[in-house]
Amino acid sequence: MSEIEQSLKPLFDEINNLKPKFIERLTKAVAIPSVSGDESLRPKVVEMAHFLVSELKELGADDVRLRDLGIQPPPVTTPDLKLPPIVLAKFGSDPAKKTVLIYGHYDVQPALKEDGWATDPFTLVEVDNKLYGRGSTDDKGPVIGWLNSLEAHKKLGLDLPVNLVCCFEGMEESGSLGLDDLIAEEAEGYFKGVDTVCISDNYWLGTKKPVLTYGLRGCNYYQISVKGPGADLHSGIFGGVIHEPMTDLIKVMGELVDVNGNILIPGVNEMVAPVTEKEKALYDAIEFDVDELNAASGSSTAIYQDTKDILMHRWRYPSLSLHGIEGAFYGGGAKTVIPAKVIGKFSIRTVPDMDSKKLDKYVFDYINGKFAELKSKNTLVVELIHDGNYWVSDPFNDSFTAAAKATKLVWNVDPDFTREGGSIPITLTFEEQLKTNVLLLPMGRGDDGAHSINEKLDIPNYIEGVKTLSAYLHFYGRS
Amino acid sequence: MSEIEQSLKPLFDEINNLKPKFIERLTKAVAIPSVSGDESLRPKVVEMAHFLVSELKELGADDVRLRDLGIQPPPVTTPDLKLPPIVLAKFGSDPAKKTVLIYGHYDVQPALKEDGWATDPFTLVEVDNKLYGRGSTDDKGPVIGWLNSLEAHKKLGLDLPVNLVCCFEGMEESGSLGLDDLIAEEAEGYFKGVDTVCISDNYWLGTKKPVLTYGLRGCNYYQISVKGPGADLHSGIFGGVIHEPMTDLIKVMGELVDVNGNILIPGVNEMVAPVTEKEKALYDAIEFDVDELNAASGSSTAIYQDTKDILMHRWRYPSLSLHGIEGAFYGGGAKTVIPAKVIGKFSIRTVPDMDSKKLDKYVFDYINGKFAELKSKNTLVVELIHDGNYWVSDPFNDSFTAAAKATKLVWNVDPDFTREGGSIPITLTFEEQLKTNVLLLPMGRGDDGAHSINEKLDIPNYIEGVKTLSAYLHFYGRS
Repeated sequence: MSEIEQSLKPLFDEINNLKPKFIERLTKAVAIPSVSGDESLRPKVVEMAHFLVSELKELGADDVRLRDLGIQPPPVTTPDLKLPPIVLAKFGSDPAKKTVLIYGHYDVQPALKEDGWATDPFTLVEVDNKLYGRGSTDDKGPVIGWLNSLEAHKKLGLDLPVNLVCCFEGMEESGSLGLDDLIAEEAEGYFKGVDTVCISDNYWLGTKKPVLTYGLRGCNYYQISVKGPGADLHSGIFGGVIHEPMTDLIKVMGELVDVNGNILIPGVNEMVAPVTEKEKALYDAIEFDVDELNAASGSSTAIYQDTKDILMHRWRYPSLSLHGIEGAFYGGGAKTVIPAKVIGKFSIRTVPDMDSKKLDKYVFDYINGKFAELKSKNTLVVELIHDGNYWVSDPFNDSFTAAAKATKLVWNVDPDFTREGGSIPITLTFEEQLKTNVLLLPMGRGDDGAHSINEKLDIPNYIEGVKTLSAYLHFYGRS
Repeated sequence: MSEIEQSLKPLFDEINNLKPKFIERLTKAVAIPSVSGDESLRPKVVEMAHFLVSELKELGADDVRLRDLGIQPPPVTTPDLKLPPIVLAKFGSDPAKKTVLIYGHYDVQPALKEDGWATDPFTLVEVDNKLYGRGSTDDKGPVIGWLNSLEAHKKLGLDLPVNLVCCFEGMEESGSLGLDDLIAEEAEGYFKGVDTVCISDNYWLGTKKPVLTYGLRGCNYYQISVKGPGADLHSGIFGGVIHEPMTDLIKVMGELVDVNGNILIPGVNEMVAPVTEKEKALYDAIEFDVDELNAASGSSTAIYQDTKDILMHRWRYPSLSLHGIEGAFYGGGAKTVIPAKVIGKFSIRTVPDMDSKKLDKYVFDYINGKFAELKSKNTLVVELIHDGNYWVSDPFNDSFTAAAKATKLVWNVDPDFTREGGSIPITLTFEEQLKTNVLLLPMGRGDDGAHSINEKLDIPNYIEGVKTLSAYLHFYGRS
């Protein structure tokens, strides 16, 4: 056992001891329904920020700040709706130490019991060694995980091996509004001297082996609005005599992607970087197969059976998903309505070397062209709602190396080096604005159900995760 | 002026006098949100039934009954949900008089202020000589209209010219569950001796000229459920690697109808009765043009410009409308979800000589075939949710003739003889079970917005409508 490994033993023991306290802290965090996408819950998002501030102060943070981001830009329903603040805090400012910025988000996806949750989404419930609740894994578990690590250090009177800068935001699930500007503003201010950024806001590939993540897909989210009648109409009276917006929208949405996930918009696939032999080889070591995908999706609906095909289509090829329709009938039972205005929602996951602006143009031209072919008297408008670029890093730099050592020590296995299908747009902003590298160090598993019902975090992932985050700081501090 | 016209003058004067009272009665009725499609509002539907009972008793009704219809059959969310009762009442039982059964419904479509209503949907508001509120025209206005006529007779001490049997139901907007059985049961019981049935639950064709309606389209309502993953998934993690239910559903829904309203399901159009020369001639007298259609739809989205084309496609050709999708994202903004199970809703308006069972088979075979072509690993189930047959009557029988005279007297114009695009399935049941004819005598205008936001009833239609209903009873009583 190396000296560093020896020195971490008491810390790991303390983390084990504090397990009940850690679960209690996460319980308190999950109990605050900080849904950033629901304007009526905005006060709860703010309450969550204050909860973090109070915890950080108790753990001895310096220079804690609640950074106001002003009014949320349109479209909003609530007039003068304030954005949730960014929580900033520092631990240490020793010029002899390296400085790590840790980022996480304290807002969550919407969740209603009636969506199909087995338990109340905002009550953390332990079942079979798993903690169920909205935000348990995305991203309150990891954020609270950092606080837990700080508490263990404090309890032991153990100095942090690095200076720590915390940056926790409350709008990640709603486009991270305001964060880009803040990072730009503070690059030479609050964030000056940061050597690396560590983000814990993604997942293991499967359920058994830890990973470090060096790439993310981007996401361009679009909406297609089709408008016709002045108000919703009765299908008995108007069916057959007017152009129905739903018919037009469904036709256009049906032309975007085939059932095997191939994007049908000309120009899109041509922008994708070709696979090199070197890149192909990276996929050889990864432990994953179609059974894990099926277990995670809870079905046998995999398009590809081969591991490389699956991973490449998740990580390095674009995808297009149809999310839903705003304005149409969405309830149970039967309603004989002709909706007056319907808004189809879809997004494209982007990869190197797709150009976001070119993609928008291809999407707009294609959809406008398809709609023109229909010769409908309704009107169609297609818009980009938000976009975030893809990101790819060097998986062999100091930060990744420290994280690999930490993972090996805690989990007794070398991590897989993976990419992710999802996007964390802020990754790119940190890299560009702070001119430093970024590491993605996930805590939860691939079947955690982020953004879904019955979101969970396995207790081993939570507790060993706190050890991994802690060990990462120690290895990085000495690198 | 004929003797009967002379005798109606005091009645019409009394109706004019009672106008404030009539508006107050409708206000009370609209204030009860008797939405039959919302299980949580079922107590309000029952409250509405009790309101009618109390009014009927005050007006001197005999043998008032609240007929229990038992438990609502599946699918329901609320266990042991009781169906709303049928309100039955009689006025008179003179064997020398004819007996008219009047039918209406006291339940309404769902309505939320946030759907876009200018005013609270359950507060009757008078603006520009129109009464706005959910149910004002569909169908509380006409139901309360009958009560108003009874009140005017009572105030004058005027004998009713016929025996009246009232049958008011509370599930019309939700498939009239239980009513068919009740009519069958009471055909030789409570309803014995009924000579004709008068239903006031439809609308003028346009906004200027009263109509009598001798035909209705039927409606077969279907749902297509596509199921894949075990729960909703994150499109970043699963986009591109699994078959997405939304993609499959949108493809299949896109194959049902073209943007010009032509049904694409083989066999359907072939069942439609050909247009005869005699039938064509019926359309010549009707006052209607595309401008009225556009005014009613609040848009210029008419597929046809010619009056006959419009009316035939509304009345005597089938139509197919896509209503919406249950289970997909339906909110504002962006949610990066892959819905696990989505249920597409659509309905087909049916006409002579379509066979409902054959139609179901054509629909099921076509959709299952289209889905099989997709070769998706998701599963699809297509089902009929409910159906109601079309109806066509003889527009020259005694009942229609009495209604035509009443209309001429009140409105000073001969009514158009029209059909309707919508369905009132119970029309057919009354005709078949009571072995009598049925008259549709509308009160509201074509732009009333039944089933839509800002539903209204023009005050002239309400007040002259009460006169028309009253005069109809007098002319029919002497026929």
